[in-house]
Amino acid sequence: MCDQKTTTTLAVPADESVHPLDPKQYPLLSSINSPEDLRRLSVDALSGVCADIRHFLIDCLSTNPGHFASSMGAVELTVALHYVFNTPYDRIVWDVGHQAYGHKLLTGRASRFHTNRKLGGLSGFPNPDESEYDTFTAGHASNSISAALGMSVASALQNEAPRRNVVAVIGDASISGGLAFEGLNNAANANSNLLIILNDNDMSIDRNVGSLNSYLAHLTASKGYNSFRYKLSKVARRLGLVTDRGKWRILRFNNSIKSLLSKEQNIFEGLNIRYFGPFDGHDLPRIIRVLNDIKDIPGPRLLHLRTVKGKGYAPAETDPAPWHAPGCFDPDSGKRKSDSADEHYPKFQEVFGNTLKTLAGSNSKIVGITAAMSSGTSMNILQEAAPDRVFDVGISEGHAVTFAGGLAKEGMLPFAAIYSAFLQRAYDNIIHDVAVQGLPVTFCIDRAGLVGEDGVTHHGVLDLVYLRAIPGMTVAAPRDTDTLRNLLYTAQLPERKGPWAIRYPRGRGYCADLSAPFAPIAVGKGEKLRSGSDVTVLSLGALAAEVAKALDAVEKKGVTAAHYDMIFIKPLDTAILEEVAGSGRPIITVEDGTIEGGLGSAVLEWLSQKGYSLPVTRIGVPDSFVPQGKVPQLFKLCGMDAESIEKAVLEAAGKEAER
Amino acid sequence: MCDQKTTTTLAVPADESVHPLDPKQYPLLSSINSPEDLRRLSVDALSGVCADIRHFLIDCLSTNPGHFASSMGAVELTVALHYVFNTPYDRIVWDVGHQAYGHKLLTGRASRFHTNRKLGGLSGFPNPDESEYDTFTAGHASNSISAALGMSVASALQNEAPRRNVVAVIGDASISGGLAFEGLNNAANANSNLLIILNDNDMSIDRNVGSLNSYLAHLTASKGYNSFRYKLSKVARRLGLVTDRGKWRILRFNNSIKSLLSKEQNIFEGLNIRYFGPFDGHDLPRIIRVLNDIKDIPGPRLLHLRTVKGKGYAPAETDPAPWHAPGCFDPDSGKRKSDSADEHYPKFQEVFGNTLKTLAGSNSKIVGITAAMSSGTSMNILQEAAPDRVFDVGISEGHAVTFAGGLAKEGMLPFAAIYSAFLQRAYDNIIHDVAVQGLPVTFCIDRAGLVGEDGVTHHGVLDLVYLRAIPGMTVAAPRDTDTLRNLLYTAQLPERKGPWAIRYPRGRGYCADLSAPFAPIAVGKGEKLRSGSDVTVLSLGALAAEVAKALDAVEKKGVTAAHYDMIFIKPLDTAILEEVAGSGRPIITVEDGTIEGGLGSAVLEWLSQKGYSLPVTRIGVPDSFVPQGKVPQLFKLCGMDAESIEKAVLEAAGKEAER
Repeated sequence: MCDQKTTTTLAVPADESVHPLDPKQYPLLSSINSPEDLRRLSVDALSGVCADIRHFLIDCLSTNPGHFASSMGAVELTVALHYVFNTPYDRIVWDVGHQAYGHKLLTGRASRFHTNRKLGGLSGFPNPDESEYDTFTAGHASNSISAALGMSVASALQNEAPRRNVVAVIGDASISGGLAFEGLNNAANANSNLLIILNDNDMSIDRNVGSLNSYLAHLTASKGYNSFRYKLSKVARRLGLVTDRGKWRILRFNNSIKSLLSKEQNIFEGLNIRYFGPFDGHDLPRIIRVLNDIKDIPGPRLLHLRTVKGKGYAPAETDPAPWHAPGCFDPDSGKRKSDSADEHYPKFQEVFGNTLKTLAGSNSKIVGITAAMSSGTSMNILQEAAPDRVFDVGISEGHAVTFAGGLAKEGMLPFAAIYSAFLQRAYDNIIHDVAVQGLPVTFCIDRAGLVGEDGVTHHGVLDLVYLRAIPGMTVAAPRDTDTLRNLLYTAQLPERKGPWAIRYPRGRGYCADLSAPFAPIAVGKGEKLRSGSDVTVLSLGALAAEVAKALDAVEKKGVTAAHYDMIFIKPLDTAILEEVAGSGRPIITVEDGTIEGGLGSAVLEWLSQKGYSLPVTRIGVPDSFVPQGKVPQLFKLCGMDAESIEKAVLEAAGKEAER
Repeated sequence: MCDQKTTTTLAVPADESVHPLDPKQYPLLSSINSPEDLRRLSVDALSGVCADIRHFLIDCLSTNPGHFASSMGAVELTVALHYVFNTPYDRIVWDVGHQAYGHKLLTGRASRFHTNRKLGGLSGFPNPDESEYDTFTAGHASNSISAALGMSVASALQNEAPRRNVVAVIGDASISGGLAFEGLNNAANANSNLLIILNDNDMSIDRNVGSLNSYLAHLTASKGYNSFRYKLSKVARRLGLVTDRGKWRILRFNNSIKSLLSKEQNIFEGLNIRYFGPFDGHDLPRIIRVLNDIKDIPGPRLLHLRTVKGKGYAPAETDPAPWHAPGCFDPDSGKRKSDSADEHYPKFQEVFGNTLKTLAGSNSKIVGITAAMSSGTSMNILQEAAPDRVFDVGISEGHAVTFAGGLAKEGMLPFAAIYSAFLQRAYDNIIHDVAVQGLPVTFCIDRAGLVGEDGVTHHGVLDLVYLRAIPGMTVAAPRDTDTLRNLLYTAQLPERKGPWAIRYPRGRGYCADLSAPFAPIAVGKGEKLRSGSDVTVLSLGALAAEVAKALDAVEKKGVTAAHYDMIFIKPLDTAILEEVAGSGRPIITVEDGTIEGGLGSAVLEWLSQKGYSLPVTRIGVPDSFVPQGKVPQLFKLCGMDAESIEKAVLEAAGKEAER
């Protein structure tokens, strides 16, 4: 594998604590330190391994929350893959990675699993920096087929012997993303040895959408036929009645009969990928037999497994959506525990969802769009109230944005709620299909800034920069839920022009009055929050709360700072800038995005253009990838917490921090 | 339609010149001022309209170059659409728009077509700012289905009567893009009235790739059967033997028979989109009949037409690839005329292609990747020399990048050549699938900066900003082809780390010695090109040539300026910055990208961080969309030409420009 990794992730001390597994509780799992150990067991013993994994997941995740139901549903698949394939020489590429906890347990990480998603601990996703068994970055859906194809082609180009098996494991929601289709479309044309496992549990995080999904459901309906076909082809092949080339033809012929019987078409065969399935993904001996049967067939293959999300834990099987990432829960009763911090403040998400519903009630032009993030973004609130005005397009952020462009072009006011890190996938759609035409699409960018435990792939820290560069965009970040409400209100007024982005973090929003009358916010106008005479702080977004704490603290040390909430990074409030530049005081900018081109740079650009020269300190996410951890830990790590801001204010005021 | 367009495109005087069509030359086309006029003609007269359009396109494009073969192949389709549908009330969304010249001629723009692609003239692509018949931005492939779906859903939501027909016209290359698949996957789930026309000419700009393409070819093989099926279903429907619901079932059944006969599956039916075809796209009376038959069937439908790229002009039919955009040509002989400017300098593209071939000859790790831009980027040079080491993945930039990530992860050195504007589609792939892992993928970003006549959708002016924000990226821009050669050489040396971007413009490269020995370039090190004592100019990329002209000019006026080529925007050459900041001279930064976060901002960030305060003038693309025109015209428009730089230098030196 490549060793060219450059260190671009902020270093934190590793959490090396080890909790060895109790052999009484986990008789088999406790003895497995690597897949080699697993492969020494008999097939009959493997059901015990599965039971141990499920038991361990329930125990661990009930107290240290993470993604639950996906991994529970993939236990047999995970055991079968490591049993049949020669990992790590053979490669498993997990798509998204929510389902990969079992994989972590079997690859030497069970005794560290209590550190999952914590600062310095195991990543909640497959992470090549963590283990050679984690072969590729995961977190954003639909990349596994393309990545695995590249890995497989690399093996062929380098004439590796034995030829490396590369397996992409992708869910039925992820395979509906355009990137997965592009991978499928290219799989048959490349010199590859790719096996795609479609782990079909008929559930995205919320529910699945799109024709491909109903298509997959129909394939399952013809299970009896497919099973017969599979057996027939296996026998024929063992008897030498068909070559691999001949088998291809038989499969095609059989598929056509199947189409006739089931009134369905096989999309994968249409793309020249051999299709096997569907099989019961919890029938472990059978999956092992099938994998052994098909693993040496050359060329791209797809194995379709039906699994049950949350399998083996009744509350999750019954109602999988909330059990995707349930938080803490009581293992016996299945009662989920709500998070308790700051509960008197509502979440930005809830305020977004409720406000959009209210506004849509009086403005018939408003429609909602999301891309498989309906409950995460609270778009489900409008969805329940007006199902015909909300479009959950599944995992397809690019389509979501272009579709919104089409709606806007014909007079609607689309509000597209997408997580910041995933909106990166729709960058060109924002530019080409919305901004060039100046269409009034509102991007409601959730999970902006540092998201915490989901880590490096999920932080939304580039949006301010990549959106600010687009001509005609209005880009705002509310400091609290009140401002969020009024920004949403303003975005649907008749005088609103062009595309808007409103970005806000995951979590609670410092403001409680959700029944206050709406008030429009002047576009490109910030707000003075505090007066002071030594330093000026210009902040954007919810970090205003950290600034407030810092300024309270410095006042006790005899330093006062003026504090302005810019609200908009684009257009900038030049009246505020004139005012603060004229005062001649040092400026500190504070933003929860990368400082390579963000608010601080925008302020520097303006000052330079106007001929001002003032000391400017830029506080924000440094030019490194940020690891996982609790948000306050990460604020500290990035120098964005109240204490760091306090120190910067004292330094700017010419007083060394006295600590 | 939406009228919320905000003016974000730089204004240029419109070229209002009109050349009325000679009725003797174009007896029918000269009388058509809008589709209303077309619809007054009899079906029999329409072949004459087609002949006029072809005649006109050959005449016009032979002297004023543009996209030729696509529009020639779509003449009958274009006439049929405007004849059958009630445009502009009904909407036609052209994908990419290379094929839409005929559409422009029929919608009142024939007499202005001589201004096509010129400054202030007609756009070479459909452009909603230009005509109400141009319903959505085109230029980047695969967006038409999603946009048209949004438009159709908006019509339904607003209960428009009569219900608006929305037609997406998409080519066989564009439909293989992931965005198109996402649109198809959602089309059947939405309340829409969408008709998709698949204009299948079996040719992307170069050649088509991917399984979907061979799939479409097979569908054509079963043409006789499909034709029979279509007739049968039409008769049954006319006789009232089946309802629309019943017809659905019959089609399914028929398709299954067809699958059996043709040993192929129908992907579109699998996605619950009714499939009709394939039909001969040049059989005009038949297309009109079919369109009339299917236009009122509710729900999403796909009509598959086979067309010939370049139809009606023998040289283009024979060899369509070079006739995609042939430049000037002699209409009679079909001889294409080469462009003549600066022919003693090679193009950046050619130097890229030849250098990559040379380097690949001695470094077996090098592989090439492109996304349907093989000849445009000159990746075809390596492709011809080593076909198994180049992967043209078709129109799928996202897959191209993730696939490159997979190759790099397993030890290869992928060089991915993609146009700057199209790389926007792979932004998340660059971040998530390459940069997070620090993989050694080299992005060879072609068509960076202002591209000229292709206009607003094709300028590549955001890349410096959106790439600079990514941790661990190395981002370089050569000033000439010599530097390009050495950057490519350096990018494949063993000590190279992490992802690289090398971006360069379309066109010729100021340097002629292609046989010079390679010399490594120190990463993050610029080069001093000229000494001077009044001003410092820091430039990035090929605009160094404009700077040189400007500095020659100011020297005649007694002003001297030091000139440094930064070569890298990331990492910045801080030694140069220390040197120039220490000198205290005013700084001018020059880049061919947006100045909202680009080189100038990076310099300001560094100066501010180090406590320097110097006057800095940032020259680059202003915060507006840039229209079409010749590159020198656009340089002038953006204040990036030698004259503007000269003026800025004189101003910075404290001498008013004396002109």
